[in-house]
Amino acid sequence: MIKELWDKGLAVRKDVLGAEYVERNVKAADDFSMPMQEYATEACWGWLWTRQFPRKTRSLVNLAMLSALNRPHEFKVHVKGALTNGCTREEIREVLLQVAVYCGVPAGVEAFRLAREAMAEYDQGKKSG
Amino acid sequence: MIKELWDKGLAVRKDVLGAEYVERNVKAADDFSMPMQEYATEACWGWLWTRQFPRKTRSLVNLAMLSALNRPHEFKVHVKGALTNGCTREEIREVLLQVAVYCGVPAGVEAFRLAREAMAEYDQGKKSG
Amino acid sequence: MIKELWDKGLAVRKDVLGAEYVERNVKAADDFSMPMQEYATEACWGWLWTRQFPRKTRSLVNLAMLSALNRPHEFKVHVKGALTNGCTREEIREVLLQVAVYCGVPAGVEAFRLAREAMAEYDQGKKSG
Amino acid sequence: MIKELWDKGLAVRKDVLGAEYVERNVKAADDFSMPMQEYATEACWGWLWTRQFPRKTRSLVNLAMLSALNRPHEFKVHVKGALTNGCTREEIREVLLQVAVYCGVPAGVEAFRLAREAMAEYDQGKKSG
Amino acid sequence: MIKELWDKGLAVRKDVLGAEYVERNVKAADDFSMPMQEYATEACWGWLWTRQFPRKTRSLVNLAMLSALNRPHEFKVHVKGALTNGCTREEIREVLLQVAVYCGVPAGVEAFRLAREAMAEYDQGKKSG
Amino acid sequence: MIKELWDKGLAVRKDVLGAEYVERNVKAADDFSMPMQEYATEACWGWLWTRQFPRKTRSLVNLAMLSALNRPHEFKVHVKGALTNGCTREEIREVLLQVAVYCGVPAGVEAFRLAREAMAEYDQGKKSG
Repeated sequence: MIKELWDKGLAVRKDVLGAEYVERNVKAADDFSMPMQEYATEACWGWLWTRQFPRKTRSLVNLAMLSALNRPHEFKVHVKGALTNGCTREEIREVLLQVAVYCGVPAGVEAFRLAREAMAEYDQGKKSG
Repeated sequence: MIKELWDKGLAVRKDVLGAEYVERNVKAADDFSMPMQEYATEACWGWLWTRQFPRKTRSLVNLAMLSALNRPHEFKVHVKGALTNGCTREEIREVLLQVAVYCGVPAGVEAFRLAREAMAEYDQGKKSG
Repeated sequence: MIKELWDKGLAVRKDVLGAEYVERNVKAADDFSMPMQEYATEACWGWLWTRQFPRKTRSLVNLAMLSALNRPHEFKVHVKGALTNGCTREEIREVLLQVAVYCGVPAGVEAFRLAREAMAEYDQGKKSG
Repeated sequence: MIKELWDKGLAVRKDVLGAEYVERNVKAADDFSMPMQEYATEACWGWLWTRQFPRKTRSLVNLAMLSALNRPHEFKVHVKGALTNGCTREEIREVLLQVAVYCGVPAGVEAFRLAREAMAEYDQGKKSG
Repeated sequence: MIKELWDKGLAVRKDVLGAEYVERNVKAADDFSMPMQEYATEACWGWLWTRQFPRKTRSLVNLAMLSALNRPHEFKVHVKGALTNGCTREEIREVLLQVAVYCGVPAGVEAFRLAREAMAEYDQGKKSG
Repeated sequence: MIKELWDKGLAVRKDVLGAEYVERNVKAADDFSMPMQEYATEACWGWLWTRQFPRKTRSLVNLAMLSALNRPHEFKVHVKGALTNGCTREEIREVLLQVAVYCGVPAGVEAFRLAREAMAEYDQGKKSG
């Protein structure tokens, strides 16, 4: 573990995905999966996400990539992250329409279905929070 | 919305996927997702599916592409659409075997599992309809 | 090698891709690559392509899958195979438009560019043949 | 062809990709490929790119998606489009680093190699223009 | 069916995936899906898996490919197969970290989540067996 | 830059890919692409490749993943790296046959074509070195 990257990464990760969600994930790690936690926290959050670039744009770019890569679980996590980072639903919509045109209609249809689920969960979390 | 494409598209979409299913989808759309409904209905159904080409072949080609693209939800929708368009189970089988050879055994195994689920749902729908 | 599958497969493969092209490929194989020749000839051509199904439809399905899979070299080989199997340019066009809608505009644009190259080579081969 | 979408789309497409490049493409189209020109111009440029959303962000999102989709030719076209739309090289760099983390190191390495080629061509075009 | 390949393939398949699991799958096959069983058993298990190569390495290579191909169901089946073939959890972990770096962080995160599920099911099966 | 990771990573990278090739790449980097060099060297080579795991197996796993990911340039680089790491041509062949079965025949055909090119270049380099 590279302590400095881990600390910086963990802070951004909690900002974007929520402290509780992140702590639950880290706590659930065991010897088998801990190096994955390290890599995600240090390389992705500690190195990439701390570079000079608007978080809102990072979020929109992520939603497009995760649709193209066909990773529904991470996609939903990052829809919520995008809302937390201040993306509007209109901005998210525009990116997902771009997915439909560039990655094809089935990718677009799925992105909208998952985004609506994630947004409902996000709103529910706020109400019950 | 381009009224003429929407109307033509909605008609074909209902023919292939079932009027009830399509109406439920359109009705469920909100401000966020309505433009996706428009794009799918106008570009995909109103423009592509109304072009001169046998619907049966469109369906078979779709099943192969949706397997390669790894989109299980849309794949199942289009297995039912293929049956509605008059594809036989033997024809669907041959396309899915082609998927297994060209996209790899795991893609083939998954396509057969999903196709059997979709066919069972289709038969159930006919019985209870 | 399973002699019966190899013989049946080689015959179909030559029918579809051209005897000269196939013989050149088989002759170029060495100890390293010969098992790949076996697998392609026996499983793909000897088993799949000899099953009861119109070769024209197999070709159209292949063009869609190879576009989705992003394999330009094999795609061009199978455009020529499709013409040999009696697919018209109109039928090929319709499948590639379907690629554009379902796999996205970039996949469609690339499929058309490659198809035109392959068709020009095919016509050239006929003239010079 | 839907005249209104075509006209609006052609204008944006020329703005982003350059009038000369687009005219050459449209002129090169024949009966076989013309419907693909129509679809790209009307659906992609006439419908999507005229919607309310910053062109700079559309460009950055596109670079990420085209990397994930592994479409090198279209990727290079859109690197030049991104520069035309006012994206800085620093912004493009940040998106490509995000590609490296989310789509994997090989996707990132390739994106940087292609981007540098495209940028050199873009600068060359400006000098010789 | 090619009897010799089927018999050899069925034996290896049972060794790796478990006799009960395989018999259940074969028994569940009907006219529609039986050719897929044949292809998987003969080409994949009877031809590939009986070639001279350590089963442990085949398993590790498979986990990487199934992650890249995004096939969660088959991935979990092969995590259990890897354990049966004698791969340690440390070896599996190293391959999945390689997935995270080469296929991207979301592919790695998903691979670890699925692997932990599969390992828990495997341990449970041993306890209750 | 994290000096310790960079130094360790650069050493392994040179071991596997050749000192001259790596130095040329690093030297060619400019402000735009240097962070990609950093990420590849530190995360991929400094972190992943220095973990406890046989380099030969890392190489074989990489060839399978790069085939599945469809990255021909990086694939060829890693065929040469695999030979340098002591993989035999028979071992590489077995992995590529596994690619053909699990990722589909076109992926296998391409992997063999590229591998033969890379092997010829590798042999040539040794002769002229």
